[in-house]
Amino acid sequence: MFDSIETPSVIIEMGKVKRNISSMAKDIRGKGCSLRPHIKTHKIPELALMQLGYGACGITCAKLSEAKVMAESGIKDIFIAYPVIGKDKIARALELNNEVRLILGVDSERGALALSEAALATGTVFEVRLEIDTGLRRTGIAPHKAAEMARLISSMQGLSFGGVYTFRGSVFDGKPTTDTIAAGKQEGAILTGVKRDIEKLGIEVRDVSAGSTPTARSVAEVDGITEVRPGTYIFNDMMQTNIGASVIEDCAATLLVTVISTPSPDLAIIDGGSKTFAADAKMGTTPFYLEGYGKILGYEGLILERLTEEHGMIVSGSGETGLEIGKRLRVIPNHVCTTINLHDHVYLMEEYGNIRKVKGAARGKLY
Amino acid sequence: MFDSIETPSVIIEMGKVKRNISSMAKDIRGKGCSLRPHIKTHKIPELALMQLGYGACGITCAKLSEAKVMAESGIKDIFIAYPVIGKDKIARALELNNEVRLILGVDSERGALALSEAALATGTVFEVRLEIDTGLRRTGIAPHKAAEMARLISSMQGLSFGGVYTFRGSVFDGKPTTDTIAAGKQEGAILTGVKRDIEKLGIEVRDVSAGSTPTARSVAEVDGITEVRPGTYIFNDMMQTNIGASVIEDCAATLLVTVISTPSPDLAIIDGGSKTFAADAKMGTTPFYLEGYGKILGYEGLILERLTEEHGMIVSGSGETGLEIGKRLRVIPNHVCTTINLHDHVYLMEEYGNIRKVKGAARGKLY
Repeated sequence: MFDSIETPSVIIEMGKVKRNISSMAKDIRGKGCSLRPHIKTHKIPELALMQLGYGACGITCAKLSEAKVMAESGIKDIFIAYPVIGKDKIARALELNNEVRLILGVDSERGALALSEAALATGTVFEVRLEIDTGLRRTGIAPHKAAEMARLISSMQGLSFGGVYTFRGSVFDGKPTTDTIAAGKQEGAILTGVKRDIEKLGIEVRDVSAGSTPTARSVAEVDGITEVRPGTYIFNDMMQTNIGASVIEDCAATLLVTVISTPSPDLAIIDGGSKTFAADAKMGTTPFYLEGYGKILGYEGLILERLTEEHGMIVSGSGETGLEIGKRLRVIPNHVCTTINLHDHVYLMEEYGNIRKVKGAARGKLY
Repeated sequence: MFDSIETPSVIIEMGKVKRNISSMAKDIRGKGCSLRPHIKTHKIPELALMQLGYGACGITCAKLSEAKVMAESGIKDIFIAYPVIGKDKIARALELNNEVRLILGVDSERGALALSEAALATGTVFEVRLEIDTGLRRTGIAPHKAAEMARLISSMQGLSFGGVYTFRGSVFDGKPTTDTIAAGKQEGAILTGVKRDIEKLGIEVRDVSAGSTPTARSVAEVDGITEVRPGTYIFNDMMQTNIGASVIEDCAATLLVTVISTPSPDLAIIDGGSKTFAADAKMGTTPFYLEGYGKILGYEGLILERLTEEHGMIVSGSGETGLEIGKRLRVIPNHVCTTINLHDHVYLMEEYGNIRKVKGAARGKLY
């Protein structure tokens, strides 16, 4: 059915996409929480609109240039869950702030002050949320320092303090875990603890935003969490499947590739390497074991063992791949977000078989 | 001097590019060999034209869609060092064959036969080279089977057998090595051995093409090697520097990034992660040790230790990064080819300071 599609290409099964979107929407709504999906995974406006159609309250972006693309598609409520630093970026935030409800991440006095000054100078107000580090050691202020920073931000003119947020993924006590329920509960406890600290200073914390694909459902159950921001759940991948956050049947994105060489019975080469499959999710990463650079559908014993830029090397546990030149394979990637980021276009396949080529309009938007 | 450039961005220093291009061209010419650079590293037509200007005999591409972009820029001699498999791809090869001198890689009877049939059906001839596996275990036929395959290909109508080629990188006796001279000599010996085997059958082997950035200069000295195909040398990177194939001063491509968060004295976050820096070259890869995901220029003790999609985590051996929010840094990537592949545009900086934004026109061309 893919005869008309050149390889390597990304195929998205829309039946699974709709199931993934509606299932997450229903589960999060059922827990009395809002859902604000991160569009980093797909970068495609029509899929963001579909998420909104199924009840998401808005979307999340990392970069302003991604948000601009989404705003141009009619999306009106966008959270940049990322510190907005630098005059050029603040200038673009000011523009976007006139067009949509824009919420900006802050995690430092310096960053907040620059936003405050820019807002004051232009007679506008930026809605901001304070980022809390709940254990990933990335951006975000330490929980015990959060109340004082919230007080500082609340006192700055030109800023409207909306609440707090975090991203942590599936981590428990600082270490990656497959116990996504415990991870979500702990994430929620840390964040709602911060909320209480801030409220003791008489500052309202309206929005308490947490969650990732593995922890969205469990953190949404924590009393006080108002919003979750999963991204990968729209497609899922082998990382999520190995961590127990999805099953193979819910993985909606596959790479369609062709066997181009079979130099020996135990080796077959496909026409996709590290420019087709992202290599950031490595074999053997704890706490789960990724066998190769993706799962080859329909061939249990085959492993996509090595990648060079345009070649993927498939080996077989049995010593014989059984693959012939010209054979087409479908592979679920380890990390779908960074993999789709390598492709200018994807193919959306509807349940009734219609296939459309769609541009990743916000792909490559790094500013 | 980069105040007008948003981050994260790729900056290419053209003085270093010209030095790298001319030095390789001079060295390879001095050994009586032809140079056919692989454009995978830059994907920018004007840089390919510069390589031709400095004396390259043509260019190398992996994919036909890359070659098409290069042909549209006026390049007339293109080697697809990659098996061309599938009707759609052969159809595009037939088109391109009318426009330029096109050379196609083959490594199987099945692949060669499909090309032969397509050429015959359209009354044309494909110039082909047989790929030899000299130890990378990727595409390419085993050396001891090469003569028989060359005989077969030579007998096929519609094909003109031009010679043999290999890609191996810096490998010796099947293992990665930093002894690039020994690696090049061995690569050359294997390939010229194959040439002799084929010639014993009375088949002319005009082109014997080998080489990578680390081995180009040493394999070019092997009697019988007619052409080398390095790619990375135009920019160089930390992988090449760690293997001894370049020095820091010859690394022409850097990522300009901004510190966006300093959550603690020992941690600073930059606005580029695994969608800005390719993660395929990992820390600790043998035989060389890559410390982090790139070299931060001007800060000896700082390490770009972790990447998530849009965040890069910098730590310090001393426990204090000394970095402030808003500080801009320049980072030499570990693997420049896959890193530049993540960016739609790069900035070319001339020696006199002029900076131009240029599109990676063949980036994302995976077909």
